[in-house]
Amino acid sequence: MSAEIGIFAPKIYPLMNKTQLFEQIKNKKSFLCVGLDPVMELIPKHLLKYENPVLEFNKQLIDATKDLCVAYKPNTAFYESMGLKGWETLIRTWEHIPADIFTIADAKRGDIGNTSAMYADAFFNKDKSGMGFDAITVAPYMGKDSVSPFLSYTDKWVILLALTSNAGHSDFQLHQTLEGKLYEEVIRISSQWADSNQLMYVVGATRGTEFENIRRLAPDNFLLVPGVGAQGGSLAEVCRYGLNSTCGLLVNSARSVIYAGNGEDFAEKAREEALRLQQEMAQILQAAGLV
Amino acid sequence: MSAEIGIFAPKIYPLMNKTQLFEQIKNKKSFLCVGLDPVMELIPKHLLKYENPVLEFNKQLIDATKDLCVAYKPNTAFYESMGLKGWETLIRTWEHIPADIFTIADAKRGDIGNTSAMYADAFFNKDKSGMGFDAITVAPYMGKDSVSPFLSYTDKWVILLALTSNAGHSDFQLHQTLEGKLYEEVIRISSQWADSNQLMYVVGATRGTEFENIRRLAPDNFLLVPGVGAQGGSLAEVCRYGLNSTCGLLVNSARSVIYAGNGEDFAEKAREEALRLQQEMAQILQAAGLV
Repeated sequence: MSAEIGIFAPKIYPLMNKTQLFEQIKNKKSFLCVGLDPVMELIPKHLLKYENPVLEFNKQLIDATKDLCVAYKPNTAFYESMGLKGWETLIRTWEHIPADIFTIADAKRGDIGNTSAMYADAFFNKDKSGMGFDAITVAPYMGKDSVSPFLSYTDKWVILLALTSNAGHSDFQLHQTLEGKLYEEVIRISSQWADSNQLMYVVGATRGTEFENIRRLAPDNFLLVPGVGAQGGSLAEVCRYGLNSTCGLLVNSARSVIYAGNGEDFAEKAREEALRLQQEMAQILQAAGLV
Repeated sequence: MSAEIGIFAPKIYPLMNKTQLFEQIKNKKSFLCVGLDPVMELIPKHLLKYENPVLEFNKQLIDATKDLCVAYKPNTAFYESMGLKGWETLIRTWEHIPADIFTIADAKRGDIGNTSAMYADAFFNKDKSGMGFDAITVAPYMGKDSVSPFLSYTDKWVILLALTSNAGHSDFQLHQTLEGKLYEEVIRISSQWADSNQLMYVVGATRGTEFENIRRLAPDNFLLVPGVGAQGGSLAEVCRYGLNSTCGLLVNSARSVIYAGNGEDFAEKAREEALRLQQEMAQILQAAGLV
């Protein structure tokens, strides 16, 4: 496909494989993912004059940060809570993200095989659903056939929950099984379903000391790391153990970026915070010899 | 609140607690839940003339079966796969279900606390989202704070995944932990979060022999049982071990009811299949002395 087939050409959505993702990271000296989790009550008041204030909020955030991050991750809950208008906002937000930026539907889906196939259509098949994300977060509890339908989109990614950033991670994920902790089993077993070209894991930044262990189990996989910023995780700690030869990290920041300001300059404030994170990341990548 | 405040009165949504649910079961001599999982390619061709064929399909199914079942369970995946129109269809379908019938959003959600609160709004708070289901299915992997926000709607239910009907159930749910199988731990630990007035479990009908064990762990909880019919589970087997003093079972049938026919008489065929199931259930309830 060529991008030069006229001004009315459709947006081109390239396959974003591991090599291309690492290229983006090197080009931007950033492995920042911005979480687009808008709450109507928290967005700047001057946006309320727009027909769709939340969409305007997202668009201005994207425009202000797109050269500093390599991924955007809308969490579907924030959109679903706003009903039909929210679902439309999710679609329009996805459309507004430049095609060369990795897009993650943070949806934490998972169901029996034929139903997971419907979820795969919902987030990967833009002809059917209006959205064609590069990746989706998936919950592992229902096992292989709940994950496989997403993997059958061979140009897309599954980001499986492994060790999450919330307090409740200890209820089941740290349970000792006969073979190891449950989250270790999730990584060990799921790594038989797909390789690191299609499978990432969610590992909370608040789980610093477990990163070394996770890198033993998943040396080549990208890890999506939420919890830096508002949830208290440390970027340096995450990188000490999490970085690999293709970076291997997408570090998500949502609240600390998108609510950096709440006045008319909210997008500039968001940019400042994204820039601060990008510069910290650039230093880390340089120190590791990756750029 | 009174239902007799005029013909323009808003639909009244009663709290559907365990006692009321059991009353419905006794009145209808049925513990049937109909799964509303429409696929555009499978719905009768004569419906394609409608502006929203899937909604028309659902409405006719509801009208034809509402005296034979006590619950409807749309699985959100089927709606999301159809994009914005699908989400609208989900809302309109929920609106069409009579207020005295238990409604389950089969959404299998679950996320960190503040995000699960958004999902709770999405499915429970009709002022915010347009939908006010009585219950939602939730995945347990992220632990207590991923479930609690749903429980904070004290007039609503969480239906937690325990032992599912799909092949992948053996990947993690049957894993031996130091205290028992993982699904047993899910039941044991979650039963500290809420009692049987707000907490049900999903147990696949294809797991017949495990029902006895589950009833030991959760003697008073309702179990939502998918997998009878197309997935091969046996109603008699499920009831032998699953029935308790308040029935304690909601048996879901989707494909075998909603696709019983695919001609102009599809709704009558669906009714025939629902009636066959209801009559089998009536016999079981009578034999158990519950009606």
